[in-house]
Amino acid sequence: MFEVLEFVAVVTAAVYGSSLAIRKGMDLVGVACVSLACSFGGGTLRDLFLGRHPLFWMANDHYVAVVLAIALLAARAPQPLKRLQPILPVSDAIGLGLFAVLGAQAARECGGSYLVAAIFGVITGNFGGVIGDVLCNEIPAIFRPAPLYATCAFTGAWVYLLAGHFGLPSVVAAPLGVLAGAGMRLWALRFNITLSAVR
Amino acid sequence: MFEVLEFVAVVTAAVYGSSLAIRKGMDLVGVACVSLACSFGGGTLRDLFLGRHPLFWMANDHYVAVVLAIALLAARAPQPLKRLQPILPVSDAIGLGLFAVLGAQAARECGGSYLVAAIFGVITGNFGGVIGDVLCNEIPAIFRPAPLYATCAFTGAWVYLLAGHFGLPSVVAAPLGVLAGAGMRLWALRFNITLSAVR
Amino acid sequence: MFEVLEFVAVVTAAVYGSSLAIRKGMDLVGVACVSLACSFGGGTLRDLFLGRHPLFWMANDHYVAVVLAIALLAARAPQPLKRLQPILPVSDAIGLGLFAVLGAQAARECGGSYLVAAIFGVITGNFGGVIGDVLCNEIPAIFRPAPLYATCAFTGAWVYLLAGHFGLPSVVAAPLGVLAGAGMRLWALRFNITLSAVR
Repeated sequence: MFEVLEFVAVVTAAVYGSSLAIRKGMDLVGVACVSLACSFGGGTLRDLFLGRHPLFWMANDHYVAVVLAIALLAARAPQPLKRLQPILPVSDAIGLGLFAVLGAQAARECGGSYLVAAIFGVITGNFGGVIGDVLCNEIPAIFRPAPLYATCAFTGAWVYLLAGHFGLPSVVAAPLGVLAGAGMRLWALRFNITLSAVR
Repeated sequence: MFEVLEFVAVVTAAVYGSSLAIRKGMDLVGVACVSLACSFGGGTLRDLFLGRHPLFWMANDHYVAVVLAIALLAARAPQPLKRLQPILPVSDAIGLGLFAVLGAQAARECGGSYLVAAIFGVITGNFGGVIGDVLCNEIPAIFRPAPLYATCAFTGAWVYLLAGHFGLPSVVAAPLGVLAGAGMRLWALRFNITLSAVR
Repeated sequence: MFEVLEFVAVVTAAVYGSSLAIRKGMDLVGVACVSLACSFGGGTLRDLFLGRHPLFWMANDHYVAVVLAIALLAARAPQPLKRLQPILPVSDAIGLGLFAVLGAQAARECGGSYLVAAIFGVITGNFGGVIGDVLCNEIPAIFRPAPLYATCAFTGAWVYLLAGHFGLPSVVAAPLGVLAGAGMRLWALRFNITLSAVR
């Protein structure tokens, strides 16, 4: 179950990265690199910051193959990926919730406080996209006014952490956190809940 | 004493990051993330490059809370922060000198040469701002002609290193380095000493 | 022999970084920092991702001095460097091939699969330039349509890996990989072989 969700999240991030790179007029190398950055950037920062080796994508190198395949598909035969379009917001929300909880969990295991763990939820859930945006020479999308995104990862991480704090076992707390993060994201998309630009 | 200075430096970097992000039209998430990057980016690079764990902000998580509070204040109730404006150049200079010495010290402890240690002074003292600028899609301010900045961190680090080399104990060499870096920065600001653009 | 090639590669990357920074109107600090990023960025990512310490430029700090000297020369007395111009494509191709093989080798030693090792070839061979471009607020050159570059590092890494896989000793496989990467790059430059932008 968990591995299915992670797979879905990696694929979704790769599709996001590919279309971002294509919009910027990149070639296949750019599409592949931005896709890898979007899919693995957040987890790589998490692992580096926590001193965990091997990095998760080195230990799961089928993910590398999957992301490269998606980049190739997006660049050369984009029709099948276009059919995924309608479900991307949902799969992206699931990935957001999942990585937020995984990040928070990893930080706790390394002795981080709740606040630090919630920050790791945001890093793991959102900073792949931040790195992808930076590589595309754009201000990161999650820093600009738009439906809540990083806020949902932060919230999902806190739900997971507080559920654990109040005694729920991890098998309950983790899905709760994923659901909270993903649900909040879908709610923000549906009702266009945004943080406004600071004036 | 040392901890007071470090606190001042972290706060100053957060104020710098907040105002940078606000100028770019970011929302609260962007303001918080850029502030965190400016405050912790340099020390994080230092710790990663030296293989030191936990990262200093994970071991001092009250700093995370302080930076987030400043970002929130800057975004929602900026009046009190505006009153800090006049002292920011001074507190920033102190932070520059302090982090330059801390960076050089850390690199020496890990076996780096004097030259490598001086580079770590610059990384620790200046690269938080570099990361913040990159996240805001700007050429890093310290790379462009303006009153000396990275040069002051480099100088402060060398003063610290040479003072130690010539036998001064660390309790003397470290404040000397901080003073040299901070003093040079204030001197450059006062008399508008710049490096010109390379033609 | 190997050390001569590595020296050539570091110098070439520093010359590339310097001229990039100068074109962007940076001052001496910017020129030095972008040169360091171009020369050491790829190897630093490799070492961080693999958890190897000390970073290669900390263990070889004469490289730091060389890069700083080149930055200073480029900024203040560029004539001698300009005379290097005609051989830069060749020395750059050699550096590309060399770092691709070194990156792949390091990843294999740390237990990475062939695919992961090939990715490390690209990271080590090309991502110094990517970081330099990002610091200069440009879309990385290797992501845009232009004569094959990252593709050559990828190919060189695979040639090295497959040569080893089919039983060739490392003293044969490594030069083969370097030659393949460098040769392919020169071939792509000569005949203007590019990947087109994805439409």
